[in-house]
Amino acid sequence: MHRKDDYLKRLRRIEGQARGLQRMVEDEKYCIDILTQVSAMTKALQSVALGLLEEHMSHCVVDAARAGGREADEKIREASEAIARLVRS
Amino acid sequence: MHRKDDYLKRLRRIEGQARGLQRMVEDEKYCIDILTQVSAMTKALQSVALGLLEEHMSHCVVDAARAGGREADEKIREASEAIARLVRS
Amino acid sequence: MHRKDDYLKRLRRIEGQARGLQRMVEDEKYCIDILTQVSAMTKALQSVALGLLEEHMSHCVVDAARAGGREADEKIREASEAIARLVRS
Amino acid sequence: MHRKDDYLKRLRRIEGQARGLQRMVEDEKYCIDILTQVSAMTKALQSVALGLLEEHMSHCVVDAARAGGREADEKIREASEAIARLVRS
Repeated sequence: MHRKDDYLKRLRRIEGQARGLQRMVEDEKYCIDILTQVSAMTKALQSVALGLLEEHMSHCVVDAARAGGREADEKIREASEAIARLVRS
Repeated sequence: MHRKDDYLKRLRRIEGQARGLQRMVEDEKYCIDILTQVSAMTKALQSVALGLLEEHMSHCVVDAARAGGREADEKIREASEAIARLVRS
Repeated sequence: MHRKDDYLKRLRRIEGQARGLQRMVEDEKYCIDILTQVSAMTKALQSVALGLLEEHMSHCVVDAARAGGREADEKIREASEAIARLVRS
Repeated sequence: MHRKDDYLKRLRRIEGQARGLQRMVEDEKYCIDILTQVSAMTKALQSVALGLLEEHMSHCVVDAARAGGREADEKIREASEAIARLVRS
């Protein structure tokens, strides 16, 4: 995996956002402010997902395509299902 | 493009949904019922997008990967941007 | 319904986008360009939905709240379900 | 805030998911499996957001509507903006 340290850094920040949200709920902060933080955290998470997906396509999918055979079809079906889950989540 | 007739059929149905929504607004139907139809139409549209994307990866991306060179990277970057737009829309 | 003419104008434009997409598929335009149009159309549709939802809350929900009784709870539950469908579509 | 303990429990679970994702990246798990977890975490987060939003409307919006004056309009505009951020994230 390329950019592993970058993903770890971003996921640690997302973990921190989850803790920050707990504090906001604990302190009964204003709902709309909590929702703004949830949206920011969701965006950060989607951004990690899009990075992982691009990397997956650049490596697994391209390698499978170059190896020939049915492997590439399987990889693409699998990636498409992951994309569908992201779009619908 | 494979499944061209299938896409055309689905897009004609989506066009019909857009007309149905106009009738609902014209007749001042209940807002929540209009929103239910908007959600159904959005899902139908996302489903066409996911189909086109899978097809694009199966053909353009795989062909570029097999041809070798930098072409595959460019195709994947382009597909990733399209996925990001879908996820965020 | 306030802003009825505005919604109708936007929905007619969305209907036009659905026809434009059919032409793009018919002419076998580049997949990524078709996907860009699908994202634009999805955004336009979501924007109509958000407008309708705001209007619904300003009128139905507020009126129900002012009328007192359990009616407001029912309206809010219904609006929440509509929002959940939008978020997940 | 009603259901505070429920939100805290769900947010702690989401924090745990963020840590689980870090372990998966650390161990270089298969990208598609990581993406599946990201989608599950996003859904859990959206579900917290939808709960908070429903609660906000049931209390702040309804109270403002009953109090009369322009306060309700302001609350609804604010809630609509929060919904737009959720739909687009």
